[in-house]
Amino acid sequence: MVNVGIVGAGIRGHMYAQSLAGFPGAKVVAVCDLDPQAARKVADEFGLAAFTDHRAMLERGGLDAVIVATPDFAHREVAVDAARSGAHLLLEKPLAMTAEDCRAISEAVREAGVQCMVGFENRWNPAIRRIHDLSAAGELGQVLTQNILLSNTYYVPTRMIPWAARSSPAWFLMSHTVDAALWIADKPVTSVFASGSRGRLAELGVDTWDVVHALLTFGDGTTANLTSTWVLPESSPSIIDFQYKVVGSRSAVDVDLQDQGFRQAGGSYTWPGLLGGEIDGRLQGPPTWMAQSFVSALAEGRPVGPGLDQGTLVTDVVLAVLESLRTGGVVPLAAPSAA
Amino acid sequence: MVNVGIVGAGIRGHMYAQSLAGFPGAKVVAVCDLDPQAARKVADEFGLAAFTDHRAMLERGGLDAVIVATPDFAHREVAVDAARSGAHLLLEKPLAMTAEDCRAISEAVREAGVQCMVGFENRWNPAIRRIHDLSAAGELGQVLTQNILLSNTYYVPTRMIPWAARSSPAWFLMSHTVDAALWIADKPVTSVFASGSRGRLAELGVDTWDVVHALLTFGDGTTANLTSTWVLPESSPSIIDFQYKVVGSRSAVDVDLQDQGFRQAGGSYTWPGLLGGEIDGRLQGPPTWMAQSFVSALAEGRPVGPGLDQGTLVTDVVLAVLESLRTGGVVPLAAPSAA
Amino acid sequence: MVNVGIVGAGIRGHMYAQSLAGFPGAKVVAVCDLDPQAARKVADEFGLAAFTDHRAMLERGGLDAVIVATPDFAHREVAVDAARSGAHLLLEKPLAMTAEDCRAISEAVREAGVQCMVGFENRWNPAIRRIHDLSAAGELGQVLTQNILLSNTYYVPTRMIPWAARSSPAWFLMSHTVDAALWIADKPVTSVFASGSRGRLAELGVDTWDVVHALLTFGDGTTANLTSTWVLPESSPSIIDFQYKVVGSRSAVDVDLQDQGFRQAGGSYTWPGLLGGEIDGRLQGPPTWMAQSFVSALAEGRPVGPGLDQGTLVTDVVLAVLESLRTGGVVPLAAPSAA
Amino acid sequence: MVNVGIVGAGIRGHMYAQSLAGFPGAKVVAVCDLDPQAARKVADEFGLAAFTDHRAMLERGGLDAVIVATPDFAHREVAVDAARSGAHLLLEKPLAMTAEDCRAISEAVREAGVQCMVGFENRWNPAIRRIHDLSAAGELGQVLTQNILLSNTYYVPTRMIPWAARSSPAWFLMSHTVDAALWIADKPVTSVFASGSRGRLAELGVDTWDVVHALLTFGDGTTANLTSTWVLPESSPSIIDFQYKVVGSRSAVDVDLQDQGFRQAGGSYTWPGLLGGEIDGRLQGPPTWMAQSFVSALAEGRPVGPGLDQGTLVTDVVLAVLESLRTGGVVPLAAPSAA
Repeated sequence: MVNVGIVGAGIRGHMYAQSLAGFPGAKVVAVCDLDPQAARKVADEFGLAAFTDHRAMLERGGLDAVIVATPDFAHREVAVDAARSGAHLLLEKPLAMTAEDCRAISEAVREAGVQCMVGFENRWNPAIRRIHDLSAAGELGQVLTQNILLSNTYYVPTRMIPWAARSSPAWFLMSHTVDAALWIADKPVTSVFASGSRGRLAELGVDTWDVVHALLTFGDGTTANLTSTWVLPESSPSIIDFQYKVVGSRSAVDVDLQDQGFRQAGGSYTWPGLLGGEIDGRLQGPPTWMAQSFVSALAEGRPVGPGLDQGTLVTDVVLAVLESLRTGGVVPLAAPSAA
Repeated sequence: MVNVGIVGAGIRGHMYAQSLAGFPGAKVVAVCDLDPQAARKVADEFGLAAFTDHRAMLERGGLDAVIVATPDFAHREVAVDAARSGAHLLLEKPLAMTAEDCRAISEAVREAGVQCMVGFENRWNPAIRRIHDLSAAGELGQVLTQNILLSNTYYVPTRMIPWAARSSPAWFLMSHTVDAALWIADKPVTSVFASGSRGRLAELGVDTWDVVHALLTFGDGTTANLTSTWVLPESSPSIIDFQYKVVGSRSAVDVDLQDQGFRQAGGSYTWPGLLGGEIDGRLQGPPTWMAQSFVSALAEGRPVGPGLDQGTLVTDVVLAVLESLRTGGVVPLAAPSAA
Repeated sequence: MVNVGIVGAGIRGHMYAQSLAGFPGAKVVAVCDLDPQAARKVADEFGLAAFTDHRAMLERGGLDAVIVATPDFAHREVAVDAARSGAHLLLEKPLAMTAEDCRAISEAVREAGVQCMVGFENRWNPAIRRIHDLSAAGELGQVLTQNILLSNTYYVPTRMIPWAARSSPAWFLMSHTVDAALWIADKPVTSVFASGSRGRLAELGVDTWDVVHALLTFGDGTTANLTSTWVLPESSPSIIDFQYKVVGSRSAVDVDLQDQGFRQAGGSYTWPGLLGGEIDGRLQGPPTWMAQSFVSALAEGRPVGPGLDQGTLVTDVVLAVLESLRTGGVVPLAAPSAA
Repeated sequence: MVNVGIVGAGIRGHMYAQSLAGFPGAKVVAVCDLDPQAARKVADEFGLAAFTDHRAMLERGGLDAVIVATPDFAHREVAVDAARSGAHLLLEKPLAMTAEDCRAISEAVREAGVQCMVGFENRWNPAIRRIHDLSAAGELGQVLTQNILLSNTYYVPTRMIPWAARSSPAWFLMSHTVDAALWIADKPVTSVFASGSRGRLAELGVDTWDVVHALLTFGDGTTANLTSTWVLPESSPSIIDFQYKVVGSRSAVDVDLQDQGFRQAGGSYTWPGLLGGEIDGRLQGPPTWMAQSFVSALAEGRPVGPGLDQGTLVTDVVLAVLESLRTGGVVPLAAPSAA
């Protein structure tokens, strides 16, 4: 039985608690949030111990694994402390927002000899996984280009995430699509060029990028083209727009996750999505399957992944996107292998 | 641990074995098929005992549950024998093709005091379940009408099912959509009118209906309109066309499961579907989740369902469809409650 | 130059005036409406003479053609008078709502030796026309079945058409789809069965059918399945839902005119449609092209169509639908050829 | 009556002849092609005089307008000679492939005092025009970003265009999308960055780019992201993939012209498209409407457009794309107004 503690009792922390509730081989036992009411609420719903200080939670002992569901900028301290306590880690993506934080977490994990998964949940999205599996099986041939669009309505930066001004479409959305692009292409990125604009969200008090485009070039000269925006109208039927096109030398795949085949016209017109939700009272969906995969692997002594190398690589690419936005120039990348 | 035997080692028997392989709390131990090679193949793949006579399998003992995955017309004997042996049952839909067979199975189950699930797997289809849940929660209001189209390409009757001439779009496809329509409407059917045509499949040596339409009328005067054909061209990107529209007094839902958001252009152009397939090497999808629900319920001592009442009701409606096709007239139904 | 008078200055009368404004070879010169303000408004916009009595308009003389855009129940008198005055006719569909009215109009037209087009505008809908052309060219093979759904939101019966209680989804919508089904199948209908429900619109003060389904059987035993409702939620992105599936022995066609490839998220989420609208300041779309076809044919001395035979046939089928709704039984049809 | 000569008797020249056949106010009288058989074929079909030397055609006199439908690289000489002969011009896009050719054509047109339209036919595509009209009416608010994908299957570069190696997705496809992006944004482009790859088409003997991405930055800091490829699999249901997303500060529009609502499964699975084709035996579609608009404007003495300024601007942007592909750097543009 894998005993799990969760740090962060927001939307994601709650989702992880629900994902593992009743899942064979794992037991969430504690939850921690700087906000005592938030921690208490999740603790009460799932019968957990509540903490406001992650060190207190770790010191109580008995945790085999810790899920770090804090804001993007607040991963390092919790992750390092949890690793040093001997707990395996599931960290929300992105791994961290600076190369230094990535290194610090990586060193702590290595020194503690624990395992670490970075939460690129789209690897459990059936569409993205299917593209990857086709690519890995050679059915795409050489991956010639990818066009990936992942955007949100204004709801996400202005009402869902309190710390949106410290994030951006590049961090919040492109960390997903950069990971997917690298996972599917399976070749090193050698340069990044980005463009984008800001102003609309700033007017609404969230001073960050409205729109970000990134062109990635791989070692073999092929490309990926990523766009993420945070300025879709709130009248959109879904808060997420996700479309993914891959052209390979043998096959092309065109994924459109907009309505997912389910359209509802009631009080308003909505696309609630079919890739998540509850079946038989059990939460389903990519982040749930990811969390379950994490604890199952730990329970069975298998390695977890994607891990720190990939997490660091994705952070490096997003940092290059931001540098290109800042400088207006092409940013070369030293090429580690896309693990 | 629920020990399971499977009767029928075709596509579906294999799928059930795979669905339960490694699933916590259940263990498939035996498989039976009249064709010894078919039984042996599945037995070898999953490490099971192989049988060609279901009685021999039952007599060996130790089976808590039996999955009956024989052709539609061949459920009765196996089901009755398995029930009498004390095993719980998961029966492929339709429960049976005659009212008499339904009664015989029901009596055997009742006398043996075992449980019986009828395999209406679309109750685990996220789209259909979502509609049902909206309906059950009152979000649709009164269900005013349903238009359900579930069809196959020629592949299914001419190459996939050897016994297609003994089945029809009414049995093979409408048993799904009749169940869904009744589950979602949750009110008794009072009459059935059907029309259809035949001739194309007969020319190809499969003497059954090409096209079947059925109009169901419920006790409150509202309707459902079902169409199933077996004559879609084989150039279609999927062997299944499934579209479901529900209009309620408060909301309408429009489900289109054609491409499921994933389109692949390779050697040919295909929609492989996202609602099934493997994730992390584990089979997923409606029939898998149904089989897992069956064994989980048994393991935890919960009732299984949908059960014999619903199975009998669906068979009654399909029989009424066929009678209407035969007579050209409206067929009234005595109205049990749609359990 | 074909001089045209329009009777009826509502949405449709206005559309016809706009459709012919500046069209080579035709000139709308007069408009008539029982409501003097309505007539005046259209007359002023397009520089026409305004009338409140169609006889006065006809007596003024000089009209080569009359477009009858009155409510469905009010075609006969205007059509007969216009024909007797020697004008060619373009009549809104349905031709009339009784067999007697159809006969009266047909006799007047025949006696006057004028031409008559019945406004089945979907024959100028590129999708429907394409299906027809494929069928006529033999590319569909034998037409095995058609599933046609044409529905509206509550907006149409409760706010757009003042006389909705005297119409129904059968008259207003199925006159389109019955015509299309017969045009594409090109074989006689031998029987009709219909079901449906009412109650929701009646609660809103429009006492007519909410939902109508009709199963048509053709002389060769094949079928068509039509559904029309007037109870789609007003949150739907379009006031029209139109889907058309045809399965032939050689090809199948699947038409979905829901979003027409254009989705707009602004103040609300809408599908404004691409098959109509203005191009270069000129109105385009099926009814416009139909009206232009009508005057062009007259100008060039070609026959117009679809004509009275088809108009009468469609009315006969819709009357059979309503009779089946009333009696609950199958209604046989004497089979004229589907002209 | 506008007398028209067409230079180039390939797919496009034929289409123009058909587009104007019987169109009021215009008459195609001559066609010219270096290949005498090609010229003869079109001439015979439409009753035209056939030429192999455009000068001979011009010298015969009597031409009010000349349509230049030669390969992209072969516009200059024909255009200059036709302008000097006093004929108005409709030039296939792109205007020319070098700045010098653009200048030479522009000077000849200006000196001759004739009019010139550059054939950006997507301005007559209902979807693109609708976006433009929304933008021009202020309904989009500030245009924040555009994502435009316009690609072809291998068919186009390997079998449809004999001179594909002298063109590229940048010239052949992006001249459309650059024009659309500028027309809709209506603000000057200040810089261009492009990336892409080659190799697949080269292997097939067509030594040009497989994939081109271009990021445009406008004077207000906003962006457009264009992708065009020529390497979609031939199993794709359409030879064209066209998707267009615009995000404005007030509305967003999402256009998907893939299946255009019409899917046909016959000998193969195809999306034949609804935006073109014949209605009532008359060719319809964007290039037809463009040609008709050209001759109508001439007949009525109105200015034609889009004209040389826009044609030159688009060529400048495409040249910048190619320069960026060559240098790997950002290419600044002197900003004329996007006319």
